[in-house]
Amino acid sequence: MTNIFNEPAEFAEDQFAGFLDLYSDRLTGVPGGAVAHRTAERQVAVVIGGGSGHYPAFCGLVGPGFATGAVVGNTFTSPSAAQVYAVAKAAHQGRGVVLSFGNYAGDVMNFRIAASRLNREGIDTRVVLVTDDLASSVVESERRGIAGDFTVFKAMGAAAAAGMDLDEVERVGRVANAATRTLGVAFSGCTLPGATEPLFTVPHGQMGVGLGIHGEPGIRDEPLPTASRLAEMLVSSILAGAPQARSSRAAAVLNGLGSTKYEELFLLWNSIAPLLRETGITIVQPEVGELVTSLDMGGCSLTLMWLDDELEAMWCADAYTPAFRRQASPLAHLRAPSLTAVNDQIDEAPVHSAAAAAVVPLVMHGLRTIAQTVHENEDELGRIDAIAGDGDHGRGMVRGADAAVAAAEAAARQGGGPGWILSRAGRSWATEAGGTSGVLWGAGLEAAGVELGNIGSTFGSAEAAAAIHAFAEAIVELGGAELNDKTMVDALLPFVERLELELLGGADLRIAWASAASAALDAASATATMMPRKGRARPLAERSAGAPDAGATSFALIVTALGNVPESIES
Amino acid sequence: MTNIFNEPAEFAEDQFAGFLDLYSDRLTGVPGGAVAHRTAERQVAVVIGGGSGHYPAFCGLVGPGFATGAVVGNTFTSPSAAQVYAVAKAAHQGRGVVLSFGNYAGDVMNFRIAASRLNREGIDTRVVLVTDDLASSVVESERRGIAGDFTVFKAMGAAAAAGMDLDEVERVGRVANAATRTLGVAFSGCTLPGATEPLFTVPHGQMGVGLGIHGEPGIRDEPLPTASRLAEMLVSSILAGAPQARSSRAAAVLNGLGSTKYEELFLLWNSIAPLLRETGITIVQPEVGELVTSLDMGGCSLTLMWLDDELEAMWCADAYTPAFRRQASPLAHLRAPSLTAVNDQIDEAPVHSAAAAAVVPLVMHGLRTIAQTVHENEDELGRIDAIAGDGDHGRGMVRGADAAVAAAEAAARQGGGPGWILSRAGRSWATEAGGTSGVLWGAGLEAAGVELGNIGSTFGSAEAAAAIHAFAEAIVELGGAELNDKTMVDALLPFVERLELELLGGADLRIAWASAASAALDAASATATMMPRKGRARPLAERSAGAPDAGATSFALIVTALGNVPESIES
Repeated sequence: MTNIFNEPAEFAEDQFAGFLDLYSDRLTGVPGGAVAHRTAERQVAVVIGGGSGHYPAFCGLVGPGFATGAVVGNTFTSPSAAQVYAVAKAAHQGRGVVLSFGNYAGDVMNFRIAASRLNREGIDTRVVLVTDDLASSVVESERRGIAGDFTVFKAMGAAAAAGMDLDEVERVGRVANAATRTLGVAFSGCTLPGATEPLFTVPHGQMGVGLGIHGEPGIRDEPLPTASRLAEMLVSSILAGAPQARSSRAAAVLNGLGSTKYEELFLLWNSIAPLLRETGITIVQPEVGELVTSLDMGGCSLTLMWLDDELEAMWCADAYTPAFRRQASPLAHLRAPSLTAVNDQIDEAPVHSAAAAAVVPLVMHGLRTIAQTVHENEDELGRIDAIAGDGDHGRGMVRGADAAVAAAEAAARQGGGPGWILSRAGRSWATEAGGTSGVLWGAGLEAAGVELGNIGSTFGSAEAAAAIHAFAEAIVELGGAELNDKTMVDALLPFVERLELELLGGADLRIAWASAASAALDAASATATMMPRKGRARPLAERSAGAPDAGATSFALIVTALGNVPESIES
Repeated sequence: MTNIFNEPAEFAEDQFAGFLDLYSDRLTGVPGGAVAHRTAERQVAVVIGGGSGHYPAFCGLVGPGFATGAVVGNTFTSPSAAQVYAVAKAAHQGRGVVLSFGNYAGDVMNFRIAASRLNREGIDTRVVLVTDDLASSVVESERRGIAGDFTVFKAMGAAAAAGMDLDEVERVGRVANAATRTLGVAFSGCTLPGATEPLFTVPHGQMGVGLGIHGEPGIRDEPLPTASRLAEMLVSSILAGAPQARSSRAAAVLNGLGSTKYEELFLLWNSIAPLLRETGITIVQPEVGELVTSLDMGGCSLTLMWLDDELEAMWCADAYTPAFRRQASPLAHLRAPSLTAVNDQIDEAPVHSAAAAAVVPLVMHGLRTIAQTVHENEDELGRIDAIAGDGDHGRGMVRGADAAVAAAEAAARQGGGPGWILSRAGRSWATEAGGTSGVLWGAGLEAAGVELGNIGSTFGSAEAAAAIHAFAEAIVELGGAELNDKTMVDALLPFVERLELELLGGADLRIAWASAASAALDAASATATMMPRKGRARPLAERSAGAPDAGATSFALIVTALGNVPESIES
């Protein structure tokens, strides 16, 4: 849909007024379009144009190194000859004019009339048609102009900026057009301002091959393919229609038609680039983005312009327009960072004390106990979570705990101490589990690991309590939940509080832990009466009444299981 | 719809691989994201990030003068802490790291974990949250980060590139965030790769005010307004939520969310800019385009960042990233062309001979006759045209002929000769009538006018025939139609042929004309048996069988009427 407008009939004028407001520091509006501000050197005027609705074609391509002026017609309608004439006259700098545009009947008529008029008045004016669309005709001269407008205009803009004379600029334009081929596909139509129905439609799940940029019929409809297949079709079609005489170097443009997103184009490029390279083509300064559009049409096109040395220089030359800016200087002195040192450094286990080494079996056992517990309770945790959430808590805890065990085993094999092992287990949990609970568990374990990394000559209740404290602190700080928010914190804080109180009262760690785990179980059950205020469940608050929180439940189950450490591995 | 992908689950990785392929000359991919290539000067690393699907946020903003690195999460999902850590480590140049991102729970957790880890390892790391979205909370610190990401990142990127130290870059970021406000609206939802239904919908004809960039609920739905009303709502809301202490200068970003087109944004800007200026705000280097998107979501947002001197320098500084390039140098030496001379020149009537002056009444009468004829036949011509076309031929001819008469009268008042008068009439016909027939009639009359401009000491049959010949030639050359294509040419060529033949045989112009007009009427009738091959009617070819061509018919009617010139005004 085209949603933003005042009077639909005035869409083209209104949008152009906004465009001119934005770029008045570098462009001047004239009747019928815009002309670029000039440097002291006079140059051949390259005047482009066509209907509106194709931005950045055409006015977005006016500026140093590109077009000298653009004629702006109504939406999808050729500008009149009078408009072309007026813009060309204003763009003319005494060295002649090239008029260039895509091959459509209306544009051809109006630009030719203007050219005759200008020539009659003594302004030497040439016409360079763009005819790049393979789908529109087998006869080259009868083809429509679509995204190849961009490469042809760019070449001529660079030629003019380089000071070439009118004959040369015209010649560069003709060579560029002869070397340019495009094929486009459409996924969905576009809607004219004020219309409620699209100008044309593509059946759902289909793709229109060779559809024109105003909805002109294409070659065929076919089922929407994967990106890889689409890339194969585009590349093989372009190569089949390539010029007879051609070099092995080519400019490439992967153009989005309106509502096809950059991410989709990048993804498609990831399949197109290797295919082109496999055929021996060296891709020169590819452009992927929206360059010749069709309002909000869904679709894309691939353009290649085969390059000789001159054309390559024109394609790579600096340009600076509202929509296209290429400058060599900002990239000239950059160098890639050396990343080897960084990667090596990450995997280095710090040295640790003998007392710390003795804690390793306890840490490993604890992590395996966590994994076993969440495996046993996966379905039940999922069920509880599904009442007011997305039901993935059990799955996420299993993924995280398994990843943590695997990482811990690898770290132990590398000879790490308990702190390093637990830290790496935590990181892995956070990365692999996904979701909030994964990040919180991961962060908690990593914080506990950092604490354990401080173990000096002894390890006892105090050190264990400090690690638990660090675990809780990290989770509270990161998650930002408070008591009664119906989260894991509602079981975690009662657990930590009871543990620290029991230890303060002189209890043995095993006794204290059992008491704390019991408190956690009670607290987890009590979350059933709470209304959620944090996290995913909030929008579904009412549905969760009567059910306990899944995160609080899994925490209580885990600390209960952890209380049963066999004496044999206790340090 | 998101249409281009292979495995939906691998969308984020696949698109990022294509992105890296495109920009490998200036960026290096690292686990979790990308880092910019460096200059010789070490600088504070500004590392930005978040989920995929928001391009150019975030990886498209990495480069000289902007971010040093970007962390790339899954679609609409926070990157993990491990990814943030890895990118920051690779981006670090020995002068510390600023991590900056929009305020979302997942991002806050993961970036904070990474910051703790980096700080523990001795890499001084700061966190700057972006909280610009007025709609998400009345409490500034609880607001989400949306398009304001762009202004805040830009300011910090410029600060780092300017060599500022870590404290200063962090301070600039906080000042920038405190000065930035955004409000967005949505017209339609976005579709995740592989999904067939949008993530959320906006009711048809409605607009969601304050909707988040992942479909989070907004403040309210309201009927889709005109562009002017939308501008008023956005500007007044931003101003109502403006920072207490602020200057009168502001950066502005009008951001498209995905399928809202540049033309729509320019049109909206045309209403926004005057409203801002009316309140006394000086707009500094506004940006209108797609800067923080949400897949193919329809919608837009307005961001203002109020500028102090330091922030203005940062906002205006050069930057060169894949998606955003600002360079002062290409614009530095430009000057606007002087257009006064051009405009004056257009309206100057050339001198003409006494013989030519005597032809003026004939030209004026002819044009009025044409207008009268098409007025009388408007309905019938429309009816014929509607059989296999869009039915506007009568209307178009009336508009064109009326415009031609008006232009001729004005030109006659300026003292123009017959050629100049007829040329101006033709131009006006082409501009005002619209459609192919308008352009052709306009071009034909202008060409005839040019011919009449050559009248020397006499005007007779030969000169009249030359003008008619020029009229026909222009139409055939421009329109490209041949005999039997079922167009105006099928009446035009028999008319010209008969006229020239009769004159060659020594007939008087009046006799020759009558004979030629009769041939044109016969030829127009004969088009009823033809099948269209050119022009608008082609796709509807079968429907036109049995009906004459509207353009051939109007031509025949006109030349018939022109044959009845009263003796009194014949020259």
